[in-house]
Amino acid sequence: LTDQNYAIGIDLGGTFIKTAVVTANGNVLHKHQIDTPTTRKPDDIIKIMSNLVSELLEKYPQAIGIGIGSPGLVDKERNLIRESPNFPSWINVPLRQAIADHVHLPVFLENDVNCFGLAEHRWGAGEGTKYMLALALGTGVGGAVIIEGKLYRGCSGSAGELGHISVDRNGPQCLCGNLGCLERYLGNSWFLEAASEELSDPSLQSPVEVSERAKNGDRKAVQFLEGRGEILGSGCVSLMNIFDPEMIVIGGGLSKVGEPLFNGIWKIVRERAYASLAKKIKIVPAKLGTTAGALGAAAVGFEAGESQ
Amino acid sequence: LTDQNYAIGIDLGGTFIKTAVVTANGNVLHKHQIDTPTTRKPDDIIKIMSNLVSELLEKYPQAIGIGIGSPGLVDKERNLIRESPNFPSWINVPLRQAIADHVHLPVFLENDVNCFGLAEHRWGAGEGTKYMLALALGTGVGGAVIIEGKLYRGCSGSAGELGHISVDRNGPQCLCGNLGCLERYLGNSWFLEAASEELSDPSLQSPVEVSERAKNGDRKAVQFLEGRGEILGSGCVSLMNIFDPEMIVIGGGLSKVGEPLFNGIWKIVRERAYASLAKKIKIVPAKLGTTAGALGAAAVGFEAGESQ
Repeated sequence: LTDQNYAIGIDLGGTFIKTAVVTANGNVLHKHQIDTPTTRKPDDIIKIMSNLVSELLEKYPQAIGIGIGSPGLVDKERNLIRESPNFPSWINVPLRQAIADHVHLPVFLENDVNCFGLAEHRWGAGEGTKYMLALALGTGVGGAVIIEGKLYRGCSGSAGELGHISVDRNGPQCLCGNLGCLERYLGNSWFLEAASEELSDPSLQSPVEVSERAKNGDRKAVQFLEGRGEILGSGCVSLMNIFDPEMIVIGGGLSKVGEPLFNGIWKIVRERAYASLAKKIKIVPAKLGTTAGALGAAAVGFEAGESQ
Repeated sequence: LTDQNYAIGIDLGGTFIKTAVVTANGNVLHKHQIDTPTTRKPDDIIKIMSNLVSELLEKYPQAIGIGIGSPGLVDKERNLIRESPNFPSWINVPLRQAIADHVHLPVFLENDVNCFGLAEHRWGAGEGTKYMLALALGTGVGGAVIIEGKLYRGCSGSAGELGHISVDRNGPQCLCGNLGCLERYLGNSWFLEAASEELSDPSLQSPVEVSERAKNGDRKAVQFLEGRGEILGSGCVSLMNIFDPEMIVIGGGLSKVGEPLFNGIWKIVRERAYASLAKKIKIVPAKLGTTAGALGAAAVGFEAGESQ
């Protein structure tokens, strides 16, 4: 594969649908985003995604494959979205087939955060690692597991839901059915709800506002962010004990609240992880920014094309 | 390899040192156990293990390799025990080298619970699975991760410490440095401490006493065991979300308290895991009994012999 080859990636998120056209070497020929329909209904989303694919194929007719990144549990064998906490009406949605019906190209479906992790491993913060974990802090909290340089998918394609590790078995109820999941503290809306309460300010609209206050010296904002980092750190310690990874890459919108979050993570990792593991682990922010998911979907598109 | 070939396994536990001589097909030619010296000092243990190996080699001179299973974090590259919560004085102990100095056979070192998991995968409950997790409830709580039929060791050989997943980030302090680890609730001494308190009986000597009371209809004993199962179940849900495994094998002495423990596990798995994962997961007791660790060490001994 040379830089002449390119694939199309589509990243379906709770807020945006993002597209990218990427060469095998990671050169981004195109990127774009539109709003996810607020209904979040499968039919509405499938219609919009089909249109996006048609438009892209007019401009980029030589694409070798299409990758779709979607939230939720992906069933690799049946090519379905089984269920998705952030799209409650999605049960066994045949997203891949619906897109594949409209094109003459191979189409692959992958969990959105697996796509993000693949991209960070192939072209981003985790380049060159063999054992890497990724956490994406967005509308939900997702994860990806890279083992010996490859995405780990589990027995049915649903592995890597690192946001649904419980850090408190008596904790608050998460949308997934579990209690005290990382997502329940760090998913966007839960994060904002807790921030509004701890900072006594119901007007907060986004995590970035909290980090701006922290940068401007608001002690309470700093403490809140460190506290969220400590919760995440607790998940990281469990993940270190489970995986003995080289690196944990942390991305998604919330990762940009920056230093206090990472300070909280490191505080807990230093206090609670085995010293020999804490010494060598790298816990780093993601590098590729908000297009990582679409880039990773394109990486999946390459897999699709190569497998033909 | 035929049944003519055999390997030696030594399983170093907090309570016993167990030995086994096993053929490639899993036929056990010999098994034995002696008490672990109460000092738990490296020198004392190394001396006893060297003697055991000499005796075994007299009787079984054709062994093709020796595997040692040891508690704690194993450093594969340097062949050391880095640290071990149940043997606090063990820091960078060169256990493999100390044994290898006395014999003309290849010697491999592996975490004791990795050995248990290997044995259950090769010859026990997990035979034929590709994605299997194992938890061993003993003096400590250990784990093993089998991915695509092979032991997952992580970047430095310390992976699979599933007993040191935290199920409560504000929970009680574990010996490993983390808070609220599975081991802190299910490791033998912690289990007994909690049982004594909940059953208001400081005379309890072993988990089996609790299960006997449960079998005799003691409602409080049943509730206590179910409660411990629920804690373990919470860890199982996180592990299912992380690994999407086919099977979780639960072994070690405590797994024999039986039904109420498994009822507690299933209660939480049914309530809190993704329905699609809960439907297909198998959570089963280990099959090989108390020699699984020594059998698995012998499996590691085969690896050692084959790699020569």
